[in-house]
Amino acid sequence: MNVSELGEFGLIELLADIVDKTKNPKDTSWQRLLNGIGDDAAAWQVDGAVQLATTDSLVQDTHFDLNIVTWEELGWKAIAVNLSDIAAMGGAPKYALISLALPGDLETDNVSSLYQGMAQIANRFGVAIVGGNIASADKTTINVTVLGSLESASALTRSAAVPGDRIAVTGYLGLSAAGLRMLKQHLKIDAETSQLLRQAHLKPMPRIDEGQILLYHGVKAAIDTSDGLIADLTHICQASKVSARINQKALLIHPALKNNFKSDYLQLALTGGEDYELLFTASNQVIAQIKRAVSCPVTVIGDITQGKPGQVTLFDADGRIIPWQKAGWEHFKSRI
Amino acid sequence: MNVSELGEFGLIELLADIVDKTKNPKDTSWQRLLNGIGDDAAAWQVDGAVQLATTDSLVQDTHFDLNIVTWEELGWKAIAVNLSDIAAMGGAPKYALISLALPGDLETDNVSSLYQGMAQIANRFGVAIVGGNIASADKTTINVTVLGSLESASALTRSAAVPGDRIAVTGYLGLSAAGLRMLKQHLKIDAETSQLLRQAHLKPMPRIDEGQILLYHGVKAAIDTSDGLIADLTHICQASKVSARINQKALLIHPALKNNFKSDYLQLALTGGEDYELLFTASNQVIAQIKRAVSCPVTVIGDITQGKPGQVTLFDADGRIIPWQKAGWEHFKSRI
Repeated sequence: MNVSELGEFGLIELLADIVDKTKNPKDTSWQRLLNGIGDDAAAWQVDGAVQLATTDSLVQDTHFDLNIVTWEELGWKAIAVNLSDIAAMGGAPKYALISLALPGDLETDNVSSLYQGMAQIANRFGVAIVGGNIASADKTTINVTVLGSLESASALTRSAAVPGDRIAVTGYLGLSAAGLRMLKQHLKIDAETSQLLRQAHLKPMPRIDEGQILLYHGVKAAIDTSDGLIADLTHICQASKVSARINQKALLIHPALKNNFKSDYLQLALTGGEDYELLFTASNQVIAQIKRAVSCPVTVIGDITQGKPGQVTLFDADGRIIPWQKAGWEHFKSRI
Repeated sequence: MNVSELGEFGLIELLADIVDKTKNPKDTSWQRLLNGIGDDAAAWQVDGAVQLATTDSLVQDTHFDLNIVTWEELGWKAIAVNLSDIAAMGGAPKYALISLALPGDLETDNVSSLYQGMAQIANRFGVAIVGGNIASADKTTINVTVLGSLESASALTRSAAVPGDRIAVTGYLGLSAAGLRMLKQHLKIDAETSQLLRQAHLKPMPRIDEGQILLYHGVKAAIDTSDGLIADLTHICQASKVSARINQKALLIHPALKNNFKSDYLQLALTGGEDYELLFTASNQVIAQIKRAVSCPVTVIGDITQGKPGQVTLFDADGRIIPWQKAGWEHFKSRI
């Protein structure tokens, strides 16, 4: 079987299994581990504090198209996607390491712009770029590792959702995927909306403050919406061994999405990835507190239920099941 | 100017400058930083302890040739090169994050073998593989980040060599480059030597224990020999603003190298990279203590002197200067 046939998530499972079977549980590093492979970031205990680490890469022609993105936006996004993983744990990002694979004929001005974009977002969130590596390659790959820490004793995880929890999400969904489509298909959209959608896709704003607020108010289960709402909710349901019901009518749709993508705004909101919003589960009471504490919209979109682990069902306003096709972004099965 | 023209080290300088000029020195992460861009690993203070982090990647057709290396060896080496950076700081490695970019048509058995090789070396050094990322790409890139810690308050650095220090190196140099040449050119060499050279190139053993012993005995300046002896000594001399003299006759040459590469064993020992030995500077007294404490050879090969920062001069037994050409491995200027 090859990697495409097994798919990204099957491969992660296979590799996590190898690591699990070969590890020596007496090693002190394993003993301190709170979350390993399978969550947004790894978490472990050091002298009472919880340390977080996450790594993510942007690969040319898989994740980005140099005809669309500027080098500065690319730098911003490469850091942002990692900060978002730290946000999904409820943590504060601290340090970043950058590993670049670059073609030799790339202009150094472009690499400078890339780093300017990285420095912009790093400074905004108090992150120090402390090191890295540069290698030669045919195409550009930007790998970023972000280290962070947690104020609390335990992180937000994918595996802590329980039946009875409401499902909530920050911000608007589908804007990033709409932005990508606009850019790829050269759609004519008014300047203000065009700017909004470009920003959503190329300069996403990780929900660092919001993640910490969720943790502070007692939320246990969260993920960032990188693969798409349904795919990411499926990750939570699989890890938590629960089912989920989404009320399609409850979804908060941005007017820019509804007005410019009339036939498939719902598809974009449900399955478009890379919004980097926070999807979480909690009681109504906790969600009410969070709504008061954050400055972005927080929308309740459904419920966690008992049932087949990993199953996500979508209902219309009349309680009828809506079938959906594409479950979201998966590597080896999706391309930009 | 493009990346090839500027070269790896020029590019690192340019990017470090951008980071330096854009950073907010009031951010707490910057304040805790002990070593940033430009050393083998980043180092910072957390609650009295020193944390270390390093990242390095192996790129297909730049660093490895799948006609030569097995996937298991590749997994070993991808972790080993990062552990070696932790060794060069005198630290203990603790956690690893793996970011893979893979072609979709790659057999999953190969990815399993890659992880088996990673797990082997991780277990040997008590390192927990805690997370990672998988993306789709045309060619394979393996990016590894290793986090570690330090027993001491300050790390071994490239910038601490002072005039009067002797220069010493662990183990044998040139074996890895000889192994690469043997494999690329299908050289006929006896089985035992062939095995030794293959191992040197594809399953290097990072000097973790030795690095900690150096630090314990008071060594201040060290680097791992990843780019080649002269290139890595040049890095130390540049960072420390000193010169160095190497006595060519003092170099410890492995018989396997001398016997099988008669015309250029010296060139291989001086400029062949990827041996992952430790090159360090200290007093005669400290070096004598280290020789007693470690199980590998430790050879004094020269002296640190005042003079033009970054200059490395090679002398023969009669004190005559030997000119040398190629300064070692540099990305964008070297290929496998």
